[in-house]
Amino acid sequence: MSEQSARIAVGAEPSMLPSIRWDEPPEGPVLALLDQTRLPGEETERVCTDVPALVRAIRELAVRGAPLLGIAGAYGVALAAVRGYDVEDAAEQLAGARPTAVNLGYGVRRARDAYRAALEADADLARAAAAALAEARALHREDAEASARMAAFGLSLLDELLPGGGHRILTHCNTGALVSGGEGTAFAVALSAHRVGRLRRLWVDETRPLLQGARLTAYEAARSGMAYTVLTDNAAGSLFAAGEVDAVLIGADRIAADGSVANKVGSYPLAVLAKYHHVPFVVVAPTTTVDLDTPDGAAIEVEQRPGQEVTELTAPQAAVAGAEKGGGVPVAPLGSQAYNPAFDITPPELVTAVVTERGVLSPVTRDGIAQLCVRSRQGNDELMG
Amino acid sequence: MSEQSARIAVGAEPSMLPSIRWDEPPEGPVLALLDQTRLPGEETERVCTDVPALVRAIRELAVRGAPLLGIAGAYGVALAAVRGYDVEDAAEQLAGARPTAVNLGYGVRRARDAYRAALEADADLARAAAAALAEARALHREDAEASARMAAFGLSLLDELLPGGGHRILTHCNTGALVSGGEGTAFAVALSAHRVGRLRRLWVDETRPLLQGARLTAYEAARSGMAYTVLTDNAAGSLFAAGEVDAVLIGADRIAADGSVANKVGSYPLAVLAKYHHVPFVVVAPTTTVDLDTPDGAAIEVEQRPGQEVTELTAPQAAVAGAEKGGGVPVAPLGSQAYNPAFDITPPELVTAVVTERGVLSPVTRDGIAQLCVRSRQGNDELMG
Repeated sequence: MSEQSARIAVGAEPSMLPSIRWDEPPEGPVLALLDQTRLPGEETERVCTDVPALVRAIRELAVRGAPLLGIAGAYGVALAAVRGYDVEDAAEQLAGARPTAVNLGYGVRRARDAYRAALEADADLARAAAAALAEARALHREDAEASARMAAFGLSLLDELLPGGGHRILTHCNTGALVSGGEGTAFAVALSAHRVGRLRRLWVDETRPLLQGARLTAYEAARSGMAYTVLTDNAAGSLFAAGEVDAVLIGADRIAADGSVANKVGSYPLAVLAKYHHVPFVVVAPTTTVDLDTPDGAAIEVEQRPGQEVTELTAPQAAVAGAEKGGGVPVAPLGSQAYNPAFDITPPELVTAVVTERGVLSPVTRDGIAQLCVRSRQGNDELMG
Repeated sequence: MSEQSARIAVGAEPSMLPSIRWDEPPEGPVLALLDQTRLPGEETERVCTDVPALVRAIRELAVRGAPLLGIAGAYGVALAAVRGYDVEDAAEQLAGARPTAVNLGYGVRRARDAYRAALEADADLARAAAAALAEARALHREDAEASARMAAFGLSLLDELLPGGGHRILTHCNTGALVSGGEGTAFAVALSAHRVGRLRRLWVDETRPLLQGARLTAYEAARSGMAYTVLTDNAAGSLFAAGEVDAVLIGADRIAADGSVANKVGSYPLAVLAKYHHVPFVVVAPTTTVDLDTPDGAAIEVEQRPGQEVTELTAPQAAVAGAEKGGGVPVAPLGSQAYNPAFDITPPELVTAVVTERGVLSPVTRDGIAQLCVRSRQGNDELMG
């Protein structure tokens, strides 16, 4: 058996299970994943003892979120190496598990390259495996550090933009510890504000069609003791109109060279609403999200997802609901065509600031993005803009 | 037994059952309602033989939509009168079934007043009952006529605003025959465009939380043979950005004296997106929707609905899905607070035009609204603005 489950009762623990952890029980090393498909109803760990089990977990979205996928990919290579499987084959399987996830390939390559380099330096297999594991751990640690740095930069920015404190922050999709080796991107900023008593409320867009906001962000907010309220994406407009939103904080899936931001569908309408209501719209993402090979927003290819995500309702806890796994209850007439882009593109003129682990870019310009990348390579952390 | 069901297979009929019909089988008069809670999966009629059954149908949303509720209320009074129940008591029960639905009270009053007037003119009970039924039929007919007139005025407006034809129209919520004695409001305009070959595509917002777009508008569009596509409300922004929306057409639940429009939550964000993208935003509603006693948008009380509509997923065909009636599957953590306004308010400066059965108002101003009401009382149909 290549995967096991350990169930932990929700509410018994003040803090959640880590989204990913490397463990070394007597039976041999394993990669334990918090199964995100079961949240928020159940906190279950999915324990992978080989790469095919990890690939399944990635495909089934048990583990998801750009930075976390990179970490999972790196640990997956290490797992194959330590357990004596074919590392090159494992790397190939992992990198192809979700071909559009850039970070997955990045994490896989880093661990595999460390393994290769060790072998080329005449290390034995055990030492090469240790090198791969060390690289995965390094990536994990770096991501946690980047989270902490983004949170600090983001909090300073909020204090600057909103000197009064008592922030009411609207967020979209899920950007916390569930997608990161640390505490995430946009959510980590809100969490920092909460810890210093400056978060009045986190408005959580439910984020149709997959409800990552209602399911995952609300879960993380509840776990952190934040004051939060879930809303349909439709209701955000009413909050803006009522003056109930002080800032929007979102993550990013890709940032083009001109500063255009690809993020979960529904981000762009929020940016337009924020502009109309003179509310800051802030993107929080590590510099690895910037893709200088993509010149502008128009060059970003937007993944179109299956229409069933829209035309059928699927409960996250399929087993609990008694629904058939992978299937949903039709809501639209059978045969209805659906338009279901996974992301949308927000042009730089609607983005107040981009917060990275290397500082804050504001205003968001092509030159600023280029400088950010240079400073990232140099390890220069000055606040820019 | 006070209600029965008749099931008709979907697909067997080219056109749907009427949303409401008065019938007089040998067993006595009945009010037959197309059960909207079962759509789009099943076309089932719910047959009410007394007022308590009709009140249940209204509360359970088997019959819904402002104009249609007015018609149902009027027929309900007639039903009580014709069957010899206490008409004053019936009117009170009906008017209170959904206290926020203005049209329901209006329809109830019209039939009750006709009944009272007949009695005061020394009619016997049978003649007074006939007067109530005649008034209900008159309201039904007037509403159908208003639909047809709005559709014609709306189509002319579209041709003026979009001379090229090939309209791609975005709509929100449900505004067709299911809410009307005729073909509806905004949907009726799109349907007119379809019939003359000028509708390229109807973009159907799913309309969270209750999915009236995905469930009901898509059903009506499919039945009418329109080219339509369902999308999450989140994805509308991407359509605007891609230049795929030529006009937005929505209905209204109330229009204040300054021209502010209360409509299904999610309408206001569409108005802001439309403004940002220079796309016409058109409201289609009968003059009875204008409420001169409400001075402006701020004076419109917005109904806050239960949070469970957001934090739980409920399939429309609960019986089909095997879920417990009236309950849903939780998606957000238990205990999550939710913000769930039923409506939002669009200020007049974001509304390109209001299409009524008395003509088109554009631009939308306080004076224009006042004139519209005067002309409505005078039966004057000139195109204004």
